[in-house]
Amino acid sequence: MTKKSTDSPVIGVDLGGTKILAGVVDSNGSLLGQSKRPTKPSAGVDAVIDRMAKTVREAIEAAGLKLSDMAGLGTGAPGPLDPDKGVVLHTPNLPWVNVPLAKMLSERLEDLPVFIENDVNLGTYGECAFGAGVGAQDVVGIFVGTGLGGGLVLGGELRQGWRKACAEVGHMILLADGPVCGCGKRGCAEALASRTAIERDIWAGIKAGRESVIPELVKQESRERLTSGALAEAFRRGDPLVAEVLGKAQFYLGLLTASVVNFVDPEMVILGGGVVEALGESYLVPIRAVAYQFFINQDGAKDVAIVPAKLGDNAAVMGEAAWARMKLAKA
Amino acid sequence: MTKKSTDSPVIGVDLGGTKILAGVVDSNGSLLGQSKRPTKPSAGVDAVIDRMAKTVREAIEAAGLKLSDMAGLGTGAPGPLDPDKGVVLHTPNLPWVNVPLAKMLSERLEDLPVFIENDVNLGTYGECAFGAGVGAQDVVGIFVGTGLGGGLVLGGELRQGWRKACAEVGHMILLADGPVCGCGKRGCAEALASRTAIERDIWAGIKAGRESVIPELVKQESRERLTSGALAEAFRRGDPLVAEVLGKAQFYLGLLTASVVNFVDPEMVILGGGVVEALGESYLVPIRAVAYQFFINQDGAKDVAIVPAKLGDNAAVMGEAAWARMKLAKA
Repeated sequence: MTKKSTDSPVIGVDLGGTKILAGVVDSNGSLLGQSKRPTKPSAGVDAVIDRMAKTVREAIEAAGLKLSDMAGLGTGAPGPLDPDKGVVLHTPNLPWVNVPLAKMLSERLEDLPVFIENDVNLGTYGECAFGAGVGAQDVVGIFVGTGLGGGLVLGGELRQGWRKACAEVGHMILLADGPVCGCGKRGCAEALASRTAIERDIWAGIKAGRESVIPELVKQESRERLTSGALAEAFRRGDPLVAEVLGKAQFYLGLLTASVVNFVDPEMVILGGGVVEALGESYLVPIRAVAYQFFINQDGAKDVAIVPAKLGDNAAVMGEAAWARMKLAKA
Repeated sequence: MTKKSTDSPVIGVDLGGTKILAGVVDSNGSLLGQSKRPTKPSAGVDAVIDRMAKTVREAIEAAGLKLSDMAGLGTGAPGPLDPDKGVVLHTPNLPWVNVPLAKMLSERLEDLPVFIENDVNLGTYGECAFGAGVGAQDVVGIFVGTGLGGGLVLGGELRQGWRKACAEVGHMILLADGPVCGCGKRGCAEALASRTAIERDIWAGIKAGRESVIPELVKQESRERLTSGALAEAFRRGDPLVAEVLGKAQFYLGLLTASVVNFVDPEMVILGGGVVEALGESYLVPIRAVAYQFFINQDGAKDVAIVPAKLGDNAAVMGEAAWARMKLAKA
């Protein structure tokens, strides 16, 4: 295929454990068309990548464009990967081992150039390109969901890291003798402030006889897991158990924010992910209060912005598109 | 004065709370001459800077050179400073407030170009230029002394930070409900693994009736404070109290190493400072074991070098000289 101009649209496609999300983005950062479908990881690698390609084609169609109009595609996957080779090394939640995602997806899309990176890295990159971090050069992203991930942008560039394993902020240790994390170690931020940690502590409270509106809300939603929406609703209603558990998570997010600031001294920390989005600014107030107190250097402390993410579910897709555009420009 | 060639010698001068250390360094990193004297901070700002200038002149004399042979001077000071303006903002241990160190020192040295930076940043920079980090691009330095400081070199360049307050690794939180730190907050690495923290726990044990060779060693040294040398000697003799307290410090240094690696994904972590130097490789073994276990990404984990500093007391002076040379080259 012919080489596209640098202002041709690009595609971002996000590969999550539960859903695939694709978007067509123009050079101004406008989302021209979108599509999504469940990942269904149990169907296997080929089937999932087929589904990704299908979702991409639908997003292009929704934008009223053709595949041949696209300059390239960026995709974000969880877990360790080799962005230079385009290979997903292993992702516990799919579960994949050594999958040449870039090549396999490109083959299904008429050899469109495909670039891969860690999904949360690209969420942070997206916020810097088109969201809360526009204009900022040194940014740490902290995304709270089932897990707790991060991204690091320094001097306007995504830091990928020496082993391409950068910004795993969920596995910075905050409470050495704290609860066991999904990773098997104790005291990681993820074991203290992720939605999984929040859920664990809320159900433990309920099981021990604490009153809460949570069981009723979960029943209404007919879901097995506690959603960010249900958590936010219980918090708004003043549920004491939820307030207590979220309060602890906020405290630890404040400590995590202070730790990353004390270490790399950025100009901005962006907090995003389901719980933060569902509760918005009110969730950030105590996080900010704790963080600012724990900054070791108080000179200009309040000039360090601690802000909510702006792009919501689209952060990764926007970042994936921006990543593809940057890689194409450098190619 | 005339501009010197880029391979003229430069001077590094380290301003500590207890001593001033100066060294003349050539373009190959050879130390041509050195001098030191006590800081005597109680004599006031002017007197201390006079003493710095005198120490510099002596180091030049020891090298068999003249002030006019020098291309420039780098100096490292503790505490928050403004390297662009050459001003030390405030240093608790001197104590100085808004001291234009670069200008005042330059005036005393025939207007020699003077560049300032944080001392521990420059210690890390020195290890990268001439010590354990030669050839490495992405390095975290962790220096354990009275406090616990750090430095961050990324892509071969010292990261100064957005507020010029980078790499305060001693104030990353590792044990949220841990002991109170000198900074007033709880659970900082410095409150868990610095010599001050080690000393606190050893004396608490002795006060509570634990047996230890420490009181005898301190008596022999006729010093008030526990030195790194005495700690190392007690450790070598198998003192159980010292082994226990150092073991905890090592565990927390392992967690700190893992936290910084999980966040910025460097190729090397250099551990230095009095205690590490006094005990050497044997002090690092358990730190390394803990750290590697806590790396979230195990791909190539052991390729991340965790090594002792090589330059000892000269790390800062060598880094200060390298810093001056880099600034002169960029000017």
